[in-house]
Amino acid sequence: MTIKNQSDLFVHTLKDILYAEHQIAIALPKIIGKTGDGKLRGLFEDHLDETNRHVSRLKRAFAVLNENAEGVKCPAIDGIIDEAVELMSEIEDPDTRDAGLIAAMQAVEHYEITRYGTLCVWAKQLGHIEVKNLLEETLSEEKDADDKLTQIAENSINTKAFV
Amino acid sequence: MTIKNQSDLFVHTLKDILYAEHQIAIALPKIIGKTGDGKLRGLFEDHLDETNRHVSRLKRAFAVLNENAEGVKCPAIDGIIDEAVELMSEIEDPDTRDAGLIAAMQAVEHYEITRYGTLCVWAKQLGHIEVKNLLEETLSEEKDADDKLTQIAENSINTKAFV
Repeated sequence: MTIKNQSDLFVHTLKDILYAEHQIAIALPKIIGKTGDGKLRGLFEDHLDETNRHVSRLKRAFAVLNENAEGVKCPAIDGIIDEAVELMSEIEDPDTRDAGLIAAMQAVEHYEITRYGTLCVWAKQLGHIEVKNLLEETLSEEKDADDKLTQIAENSINTKAFV
Repeated sequence: MTIKNQSDLFVHTLKDILYAEHQIAIALPKIIGKTGDGKLRGLFEDHLDETNRHVSRLKRAFAVLNENAEGVKCPAIDGIIDEAVELMSEIEDPDTRDAGLIAAMQAVEHYEITRYGTLCVWAKQLGHIEVKNLLEETLSEEKDADDKLTQIAENSINTKAFV
């Protein structure tokens, strides 16, 4: 896809985050399988459900824009996920691994927060208000997911990993 | 490096962000060369100086910890930078490219914010207070850099790109 103007860049970035959400949905079950703490596993499982809802919401946005809901390969999320998977295999101690997995998932969340943040601003400026509202809903959930990870790290996981 | 405990994970993540800062210092001159807007170019130039200071600060942290200041390959930052470089080559219109470059640099900032955020918490829990203070200084500058990018996008670049 050649990007000629801001509208093209907007659609390109939507396709980028659609690909990212798909890759996260594929990676999360592997991460869940490596998570030791039950509460943290629950949080990751909830986030998998949420990720599937984000994909559906993106598909609604593409329908509103009358564009094909197809992802474009996004090297950033591929790299972030590769790093998480690499890290999982390098840590044997379950508590330390859980602390590492939280950090890895927070990198995923921050990538999504920056992308959805940019997309919301662009959607507003392009006058796509319905799409902006859909994206804002997801942005808010991504921020909540990041906050929940910070809380579980501070209140539970780190207490075990740092003994 | 095998990660046996939280202390190893901390040093591993420090090496990851050292590699990331180096890669950002290499990528920024290319990004600056593709930036159309003078003010935005100035912001990126300032951030390059800041990135070099962050590398020095990390080296001080390694010295305090009595660890070798060597980076470890970080697929996440490689992916984020690859995506930025790919995007630059796909956009001809300078205003649209500037809007895309801001979004790309905000993805870089968010990666650094999440990593330094995690490292600050871990440094505190491991009792490395001097290192925590060094990392917090950088974290605060990364957040400022992200805010400045949001401001220039909203006040100047997007006004040109969305006409």
